[in-house]
Amino acid sequence: MNFKKITIIGIGLIGSSFALALKKEGFNGNITGVGRNEGNLIKAKEIGIVDDYSTSHAEGVIDADLIVLASPVGQFEEIVINIKDNIKKGAIVTDVGSVKAGVLKKIVPLMPEGVSFVGGHPIAGKECSGIHAATPDLFNNAKCIITPEENTSKDALEKVIDIWKKTGAVTVLMSPEEHDLVFAAVSHLPHVVAYALVNSILDVDEGILKHGGRGLKDMTRIALSPTELWRDICSYNKDDILTTLRKFSSSITHIINLFEESDWAGLEKEFTRAKKARQSIEPD
Amino acid sequence: MNFKKITIIGIGLIGSSFALALKKEGFNGNITGVGRNEGNLIKAKEIGIVDDYSTSHAEGVIDADLIVLASPVGQFEEIVINIKDNIKKGAIVTDVGSVKAGVLKKIVPLMPEGVSFVGGHPIAGKECSGIHAATPDLFNNAKCIITPEENTSKDALEKVIDIWKKTGAVTVLMSPEEHDLVFAAVSHLPHVVAYALVNSILDVDEGILKHGGRGLKDMTRIALSPTELWRDICSYNKDDILTTLRKFSSSITHIINLFEESDWAGLEKEFTRAKKARQSIEPD
Repeated sequence: MNFKKITIIGIGLIGSSFALALKKEGFNGNITGVGRNEGNLIKAKEIGIVDDYSTSHAEGVIDADLIVLASPVGQFEEIVINIKDNIKKGAIVTDVGSVKAGVLKKIVPLMPEGVSFVGGHPIAGKECSGIHAATPDLFNNAKCIITPEENTSKDALEKVIDIWKKTGAVTVLMSPEEHDLVFAAVSHLPHVVAYALVNSILDVDEGILKHGGRGLKDMTRIALSPTELWRDICSYNKDDILTTLRKFSSSITHIINLFEESDWAGLEKEFTRAKKARQSIEPD
Repeated sequence: MNFKKITIIGIGLIGSSFALALKKEGFNGNITGVGRNEGNLIKAKEIGIVDDYSTSHAEGVIDADLIVLASPVGQFEEIVINIKDNIKKGAIVTDVGSVKAGVLKKIVPLMPEGVSFVGGHPIAGKECSGIHAATPDLFNNAKCIITPEENTSKDALEKVIDIWKKTGAVTVLMSPEEHDLVFAAVSHLPHVVAYALVNSILDVDEGILKHGGRGLKDMTRIALSPTELWRDICSYNKDDILTTLRKFSSSITHIINLFEESDWAGLEKEFTRAKKARQSIEPD
């Protein structure tokens, strides 16, 4: 790694785990954590997650060779406006956001000359959040999607790929648009469905939810995710999520029709198609 | 326990675990396993799950004080027709099926005079099935719903409650109708949704599913369940599942409208309602 100073903005689960993974791998430069909650930053320094910290975005990025946006995506634009005059020439800015195209359209044009942006999205997380859930192994064998655009610097791209490999992640390249449709389908849609499933059970009867077993708990665990973060992801990836929601809605309507017609063979066919596909993905 | 011989029809995960739990608890009567796959029954005897076995339903129930229907619900009617002339007077028949009202309407009238039926449904299971997944602890602290009807014998009801308590289960009484609406909402609907979710992701693009992370895997794990069993559950609980599917479909339509209107505050309100309710159920 050629970076002497890495600044991570947003010292939550992902930001902290990224820092810990680099330290475990032997990174001996400076890692600076930036956030608004000073108590959290003090703890992060005590635990050894960061070497320094700042509650000022603009101050925290001074002299950084790599700046990692690890706060909720809804804050990226404001953060970049705050830091852009203090980013040094030759620095690389990257992010860990769950939405790419819409966000990049807003922040990439804000990058000063001589500063490269490379988008990233590690597919790792837990229901629990914050520095106490952080672990250097969070990205071990996890995929990290890297989303270069036509104008992305090849050199910066290689460096961002390299640093994610050092955390143990397996990097996969996609365009921002491809990324957003893929993750609308496999991540954003399931989150929205989990929230809707809980609400529709409440709509049947408020007292029923408590009877749910392990299957329901597994299915609705992601409804424990931060609602503000998911609201922002939905707004930034509106069109792709709508595309997948409409497909899903058709799929539910089709199943309702099969029920109404008592077409149990047709229903079993739907179930079998889903089961086969689910079996084909790697085990947990 | 006053039972000298217990016959379990269907030696899969639930039937085997029930036998193992009773043996662990000190039951020293005879446990006979009945099924169509002789190889499976031989193994069950070797492992010590059952003391005897029979591939004949009619033969296996002779002299049994308690008969447990532990095969898929779609087979109950045929099984009861096969065994009814061989059930001894005073015996109790129970089941572990996931649907009650519709199934009971078919099988309870078939019970010979002097034979009591008490419905049961242990809320326990795994994706894996069969005797090799069986464990005496499967029902430990799990709920077991017992569904007495107006004419159910009080004595038989008490004995069935008692034997489930011995397996470690916590018994809950519900009418068959209440049971079916509750489990349509918290179990049958989620299964149908999981299958539909996988299929709608395939409909977006067949190659996308493999990018799913832990959240999607958790949400779609129940799509690995046996499709034939779930087809039968759907057919037996058609009306209640349709009720819940229609509520769910409205919930999805409402969310699509919020997206179309870019009503992100309204969307966050939906998410928050679901998150609060999900937080209120006991942790996994």
